[in-house]
Amino acid sequence: MNYDDAGVSLAAADASVARIAQIARRTFSPRVLTPIGGFGAAFDISGLGGQRPTLVSTTDGVGTKTEVARAGARYEGLGRDLVAMCVDDLVTTGAQPLFFLDYLAMGAVDPALVSLIVESIATALLEVNASLVGGELAEHPGVLEPGQVDLAGFAVGILDPDQSLGAHRVENGDVVLGLPSPNVRANGFSLIRAIYAELLEQVRSGRRGPSLADGRFLYDALVEPSVLYTPTVRALTEAGLLHAAAHVTGGGLAANLQRVLPPDYGVAIRPWPWPEIFTHIAHDGDVPLTTMRTTFNLGVGMVLVAPPAAKPAIQAAVPTAIDLGVIERSREGVEWIDA
Amino acid sequence: MNYDDAGVSLAAADASVARIAQIARRTFSPRVLTPIGGFGAAFDISGLGGQRPTLVSTTDGVGTKTEVARAGARYEGLGRDLVAMCVDDLVTTGAQPLFFLDYLAMGAVDPALVSLIVESIATALLEVNASLVGGELAEHPGVLEPGQVDLAGFAVGILDPDQSLGAHRVENGDVVLGLPSPNVRANGFSLIRAIYAELLEQVRSGRRGPSLADGRFLYDALVEPSVLYTPTVRALTEAGLLHAAAHVTGGGLAANLQRVLPPDYGVAIRPWPWPEIFTHIAHDGDVPLTTMRTTFNLGVGMVLVAPPAAKPAIQAAVPTAIDLGVIERSREGVEWIDA
Repeated sequence: MNYDDAGVSLAAADASVARIAQIARRTFSPRVLTPIGGFGAAFDISGLGGQRPTLVSTTDGVGTKTEVARAGARYEGLGRDLVAMCVDDLVTTGAQPLFFLDYLAMGAVDPALVSLIVESIATALLEVNASLVGGELAEHPGVLEPGQVDLAGFAVGILDPDQSLGAHRVENGDVVLGLPSPNVRANGFSLIRAIYAELLEQVRSGRRGPSLADGRFLYDALVEPSVLYTPTVRALTEAGLLHAAAHVTGGGLAANLQRVLPPDYGVAIRPWPWPEIFTHIAHDGDVPLTTMRTTFNLGVGMVLVAPPAAKPAIQAAVPTAIDLGVIERSREGVEWIDA
Repeated sequence: MNYDDAGVSLAAADASVARIAQIARRTFSPRVLTPIGGFGAAFDISGLGGQRPTLVSTTDGVGTKTEVARAGARYEGLGRDLVAMCVDDLVTTGAQPLFFLDYLAMGAVDPALVSLIVESIATALLEVNASLVGGELAEHPGVLEPGQVDLAGFAVGILDPDQSLGAHRVENGDVVLGLPSPNVRANGFSLIRAIYAELLEQVRSGRRGPSLADGRFLYDALVEPSVLYTPTVRALTEAGLLHAAAHVTGGGLAANLQRVLPPDYGVAIRPWPWPEIFTHIAHDGDVPLTTMRTTFNLGVGMVLVAPPAAKPAIQAAVPTAIDLGVIERSREGVEWIDA
């Protein structure tokens, strides 16, 4: 018996690895010391991180958005989703992203699909000034079907603790601003797959399903890639305008904002209009409001906490920022003001 | 519709995350600055890495050894395998492991199984002085079956470039020594699953299958966890005894040793006796010798390259080291001497 008999194509893997190395090289900063393919990826950090350099690392996956993408063979945004999930977490600490590694498991290694996904990762990393220094391509025949993929990522950044963001910097009277998300990013997809099982069946058979009011197909809105908040958060951090930031992922806005509130501080969140995709999901799945709020970003994917004096500068830099409320001492956690 | 209707158990996930945090805390070095659960894991690296501190990162998975483990519900070694795959790669560069993050995807979050796997990761990390600073637990209902898991990891270490190992340090006359591996570690499992499909069916139905000459069941030998070479390699590195090291994973000994040979240097590898598990696999699967050599470690999981003067000290520290050959200038790559 040989590897091909076991459903593993070494030739496809070799072709993919060569292509990955080529794509990754485009993202290399001069600090990357080894080419892809060594036993470890080396990254020179001399001079970074101030007097007490601190590494910040994050890991995340894109969940089963991969399955929704597979239904219509719309994999091209998954790499951007992956980078957003990891790096948008990382920058909420005040850290600067340095490098990234990906883990891609497939039922069968399809070099064209590998390229598409890794290109998407690389393009997103270029936007956040991080290098794709390594990764693992795994073939899992018999566990995943051909076309099925699992995608996870790891990001490392560096922080000067004197410039860290978080609960320790939040003060009474700080303003709370939201950065808009027109789509679901990469959260809640097991729920979405259950609600839209029939739509996904239609898409698999070549139909497009219903449209939104803006003319986009609902399916296209579901697979739309995430906004990358990192460039905005980094620029505001470097300008010294922020006290804290919270990336809205699983758990929703309240649970994630709670993570950067000092004990005994709270905020009442004003309502904002949900993008249409969320009203569709709530309606089509008869999803309770509480579940919508704890599962989806509902149109706000990143929350910023800033001193009131910084508000005009932030609004000038990000005119679409949504005014969500004000931090108050002696208020219990995050509360929703109903519309 | 709600999350439970979609096959996602938030209660099971919450219970698991609390348990993971508890287990991980045991591994924390004083340099870990944030508890598990923040947006990013912070690790203080001040004073590490010499004048030009360089980070080394690796990522790997355990492949479909997970499926072989599932057949007999023998998951308890997978965490050790994962740490070995990542950290034994990392130390071949001369780096010191600092921290680790894991990615665990499951068909259904089973808190007892999560604990078992994370405990195994944590125990292995304690042996290599690395902290489990974060991870992602993903539930993929409908993609993975209950009991099916996918496991990947990510390790970061720090290197003082003045103490790096690799091809740039290898010289004519250096000795090549192998550290023994009694089992397959976590490579070649798609081939193993194809060869032993019937055995795995038997194991699933509660039978144990054939035994090896040493009395162990063949199945038990297949799921046996990897040797962790990191403590040995780190001790030899810190004693200044090594020029290079190669972790024998996919591609086998020759391809991995080749990665640390300078151009126009080579070595003729002497034969050594294969552990019985490999002769079984070759026989039961009628696997060609070339495939055995490019797929499995065949009993040597780590190769060390050292100056001849260091050989007695290495053999004193590791009496089981196998004498494999001598580096020669003007020899083409790695060649096998047939038994």
